[in-house]
This record gives sequence, structure tokens and C-alpha cells, in this order.
Amino acid sequence: MSSKEEIVLQGSLSMKGGDGIYSYAKNSSFQRKSADVVREKIDEAIAEKLDMKSLCSRGSRFHIADFGCSTGPNTFIAMQNILESIERKYQSQCPTGQIPEFQVFFNDQVSNDFNTLFTTLPLDRKYFVAGVPGPFHGRLFPASSLHFAYSSTALHWLSKVPEVLLDKNSPSFNKGRIYCTSTLDKVVDAYSSQFAKDIKIFLEARAKELVAGGMLVMIMPAKRNENPHCQTGMGMCIEYLESSFLDMVNEGIISEAKVDSFNLPLYEASLEEMMELIQRNGSFNIEKMELTTVAKGESTFENYSPYTVQMLKMHMRAGLEEIISKHFGTEIIDDLFDRYAIKLENLFHRLQSGKGKGTQMFVILKRK
Amino acid sequence: MSSKEEIVLQGSLSMKGGDGIYSYAKNSSFQRKSADVVREKIDEAIAEKLDMKSLCSRGSRFHIADFGCSTGPNTFIAMQNILESIERKYQSQCPTGQIPEFQVFFNDQVSNDFNTLFTTLPLDRKYFVAGVPGPFHGRLFPASSLHFAYSSTALHWLSKVPEVLLDKNSPSFNKGRIYCTSTLDKVVDAYSSQFAKDIKIFLEARAKELVAGGMLVMIMPAKRNENPHCQTGMGMCIEYLESSFLDMVNEGIISEAKVDSFNLPLYEASLEEMMELIQRNGSFNIEKMELTTVAKGESTFENYSPYTVQMLKMHMRAGLEEIISKHFGTEIIDDLFDRYAIKLENLFHRLQSGKGKGTQMFVILKRK
Repeated sequence: MSSKEEIVLQGSLSMKGGDGIYSYAKNSSFQRKSADVVREKIDEAIAEKLDMKSLCSRGSRFHIADFGCSTGPNTFIAMQNILESIERKYQSQCPTGQIPEFQVFFNDQVSNDFNTLFTTLPLDRKYFVAGVPGPFHGRLFPASSLHFAYSSTALHWLSKVPEVLLDKNSPSFNKGRIYCTSTLDKVVDAYSSQFAKDIKIFLEARAKELVAGGMLVMIMPAKRNENPHCQTGMGMCIEYLESSFLDMVNEGIISEAKVDSFNLPLYEASLEEMMELIQRNGSFNIEKMELTTVAKGESTFENYSPYTVQMLKMHMRAGLEEIISKHFGTEIIDDLFDRYAIKLENLFHRLQSGKGKGTQMFVILKRK
Repeated sequence: MSSKEEIVLQGSLSMKGGDGIYSYAKNSSFQRKSADVVREKIDEAIAEKLDMKSLCSRGSRFHIADFGCSTGPNTFIAMQNILESIERKYQSQCPTGQIPEFQVFFNDQVSNDFNTLFTTLPLDRKYFVAGVPGPFHGRLFPASSLHFAYSSTALHWLSKVPEVLLDKNSPSFNKGRIYCTSTLDKVVDAYSSQFAKDIKIFLEARAKELVAGGMLVMIMPAKRNENPHCQTGMGMCIEYLESSFLDMVNEGIISEAKVDSFNLPLYEASLEEMMELIQRNGSFNIEKMELTTVAKGESTFENYSPYTVQMLKMHMRAGLEEIISKHFGTEIIDDLFDRYAIKLENLFHRLQSGKGKGTQMFVILKRK
């Protein structure tokens, strides 16, 4: 594994819509890199594990859904790759058959910018399109109506901030922090337990929606079991943001109470945690489960430069601007991210010295 | 049939998005009235003609699509009514069966405001939702994947303006007109032939997408066979708009050439024209086909008042602002519709004297 780690912090909730300079559509190159890395792995899994003969025995339609698609273009690239892999598999299994018609369902929160998603759809696509608004923590499709489900860098977004983090009288009160960067076990427990609840609901819903033999691919930022949350790439990125907030508190620009009552609904699970949740659900066979990283030489964070600093700043802003604005107001955003950019030199040095064990979890399940 | 006719001029193309005072969402009460009128007829057709036993024999899912849904709320009301009728029919045919899960597909142009549609979805809906962007003049769904298709006040929008209308050397050149309000047969022919091409493609696409036994409901503004286009409710509404344009030409605000090169891509077919197109397609049985109107006492146009003038002005503006702005620029819009409102007194008098034979076509087909 490369010592130059990819930082992954992205997802479906509160991505910045439109196609302006701070939009998700223009600031999601990190996510695209992570899609490239897993492309081959998904292709392999489809070739080896997806039984197209039985999946297409009842009809000539094949339904794919991307849970937490945001506004593109990454979802279009991922869907295209998956579709091509499935076509190849179909042709090898059923060389004389008629390739099924594909319908791709793009899911994200109701607040996602579907207008941008729809107006930027690839013109040469070979599939029918549908957008599905709503939280993937719950049912979104009729029973047994999907053949392939995919979710990339979305499941690390929690459905909500665990309430105990805001309770001054609780041992989980997350004072002066905006994430489980604290070493307090009770804070981490609150995050972890919310993640467990969310994944339980996600897996139950997908188990209903997928046909027997259907595949579920999940890719999300993760942490190695032994690592504290403050030492993953994502944790470190957030810690510098946290520190920018505290500087603004010290200068009287925002109140301490405002920061105390703000927490990011994000969580990086370990492989062990996820394995337990999947087994507890019981509806899926685990076909593949591993930690992956961007291949050496492809990391965006190999070198500190004004360009990479700017990229990381834009990336963080695209992902977090909406959620931060909601709590603090839009007027602090420019100031906050300017401060943040200045701190990034330090972050790059830590990343280059091998710190920042951010990585991603790659899971392929098959519906029993 | 009431002598107080409902004027129908609405559809999917270029409806004004958002929920501002000129938005479609806030100015579609006329469309809602027409939905009320047909509600009972659809309920009857479902009760008498839709065979739920055979449609649900292969699975417990039921897929409904609204072609040209715009932004709501009318589509939500129509879908809810249809769903309830289907449930009742299912319960009467399969009293011990499990009611199927419904998935409703909301289709409209890519430029439709799906963000507004999705954020205003009824919270108490009993169906799964998907938005399908793209022109309904063409395939939008996998083969045999729909059980019920519906299109209300959308099919009178042509896919494009017939080119000959713009050709100065053609006998179809539509000088000084913006619609087939002229008595020139060649102009009407150009409109009628574009409508025929569009409906041909629409019916071919829906024939592919609907399962055998699936139902297709089409509601659209129509004209009685013997009536010229300038004497329907819609034609008269447009003629007053045309006249407002010409006033602006006379005052030098817009050029004559600009008006000559603008035509509304709208067409009201007669029952006879539509019948021929359906028969030529050959994939459907005609279950019901008639002209309908809003019941006496429900017409919005019974009385001329500042309120009804304002409503009609807003209605026309919601439907046409985008398409007019694209050609003439946004700066003429307020002026144009202010002039239009002044002319409406005359229109109301004509409507009240029984003129303005605007009405709508109600068609129920069943896939062979």
C-alpha cells in the first residue's frame, strides 16, 4: 500500500449543486480517482460472481441504482463502467441472447440538485434514466425490483448527528470539536452507534429491493481498526477545519457555543465494524471486503503546491459548505476556508511523512 | 355540454419552474379543474377495463408513468386518484391478495424543474417515486415495463415548430401570426402534419413500454372537427396574445420579422385526426374516446372580473413565458402580458356569448 494516502471526504448529503466554481460537479476529482481504482475490482466481481443467466431469466430488463449519486459526473462514469461490465458478462454467458435494456436509477437526497444531474447526463448513454429522490436510509424501490445496487462515498454520511453529542450533561458532549477527532471513547461510541443504526436500515432496505442473486457494491471512506479517527486522512482534514473554527472563536467571530453545538454527521467505520453489521443483517453473502487505496503515483496529495492546496480547499468546501452555512450562516464561509487553506501546508507535511491513514472500504455483497 | 367552455392551454414544455408568483406550480388551477372532470371517467375505465389479475400475475409491482407531469401539484392529485382506483380494482378482483407496490414515474422535459417537483412531493404518498427526464416523443422506459401511462394537457405541445412556417417562400409562411389562427389551409396543414408525426412517435414508444393489457390515458385540449383553430378557447386566447405582439410591432418595440419568425409549437387536434393516428399505429384498442368539458358551474370563465382576468393572464404567462422569452428576450414579458390583460375583457364577452369552442379530448387506450 502506498504511503501517499488518498483523502476521502465526500458524499451525497449537502453537496453543492449547480456547476459554479464551488459546485460538487466541478470539485469531485478525488471521488473520480477513487472510482477508477475500484473499476477493475467491480468488473472482476461482475465477471466472476454475477449470474446474468438467472438474473435475466424472467425478463430482458436490468435495473441498476446508484445510492447517493450527487450531481455527476462521477456517477455517470461509474454507471457506464458497471453497465459495460454487465454487458460483457451477459455476452459471455448468453452469447446468442439479446442484451437486456438497462434502466439506471440515480438516487440522492430530495435536496440534491437533480436539475443539474439531468441536464448533464451523457448524451451517448445506452440506458434509460430515472432520478429517485429520498434518503437511502429507508425503502426507495418496490420489492425485488433492482438487480445491481451501488453506493460510492455516500454511506459515511450519517442520517443525523447523534443527539448525545450536543448534551452538555452527557459524557458524549463533544465540546470544541466538530467530529470524533476527540479521543473520548464516549464520543466515538455515539458516532459509531449512529453509523450502525444507519447501515442496519440501509441493508434492510436494499435486501428488500434487490432480487435474489443481485449485487450490492459499497465504497466508503474507512479507517484501519487500530487507528484513532483523528489520524485518518479525513479525520486530519476535519481537525484542521476544527482548528480554523476555534481560531474564529478566539477572535470573537463566532461563539464557542455555536461550535460546541455543531458536529459533522460523518463516520469512518472499520472493516470489522462493517463486517459485523452485514453479518447481523444476514441477507447477503460477502463476496469481497477489503480496504483499498489509490495506487501509488495517482494520489492527488503526493506534493504540496498552491494547486493541490487549492484543490483540497475547494474539495472540502464543495462537500461541507451547505451543512456549515446552515448552522453558522453563509457569511463565515469565505473566511473559514481561507483560514483553512493556510493550515493545509502542515497537513500535507503530515500526509507526506506517512501519517493520515485515510483509505476506503470496498465491499461487494450478493443477495441470498 | 355547457356553453361556458373551459380554456385549456398548458403542458409540459417550458412551464415556469420554482414556486414564485408566475410559476406553473402556483398557476395551474385550470389544469386541476380538468383533472377533476376526468377523474371519474378514469376511475370507471379502470374498474371496467383494467385486468389487475393478469397485470399482477407476474409480480407484485405496478408501474405508473405521467408523461409531461410538469412540477405539480396537479400530477400528484392525478397520480393519487389513479392509484386509488387501481387499488379498488385490485381489491375487487383479488380480495385475498397483497396490494401491489406502486412506483410512479414523473416524466417531463430535461429542462423541467424536477427539484421543485421532488421537494413538493406529497408526504403521505403510498408509492415509490422516480423522475424521468426527457422528451416523451421517443422511448423513455425499458420494453414492457409500464402498466399504466397517463398524459394530461401535454400532447398538444409539438416537439418543434414546423420549419415551413418560417420559410418566406413557402405557402405555409405564417406571417404576422404565432399559431394556426390563420385561415390558410397550408399553415394548418403544417401544424397538423407535425402533430401527426409527434403522436406517431409517442404511440410507438408507449406501445413498446406498456405491457399487454396496460392502459394509456391521454387528455389534451382539442377542437371540434368543424371549428377553425381561431375559434377554440385556446385559439382565441392566442389570438389576443398575437394581437398584443402586433401592437408592440406597430409601436416599434419589437420588429415585424421577430414576430414572423415566432410560432407557438402547439396544436389542438380533432377527435377524427386522433382516431386515425391511433388506428394507423395499430397497437392499441380504443376503450373510450370523446370530447369533454368542465361541468357547468365549474368553469373559471363564467364571469368577467378583475380576478378572472388576472387568473387567465397568470395562466398564460406561466405556460408561455419561457418560450416567448427565449425568442424575444425577457424584457418584453411584463409589457406583453399587461397589454394582453387589457384585451381580455373582449375575450370574456366572446366566451360568454358561447363562442370559444375550446374543449378537451379524453382517450383511453389498452395495449393489445
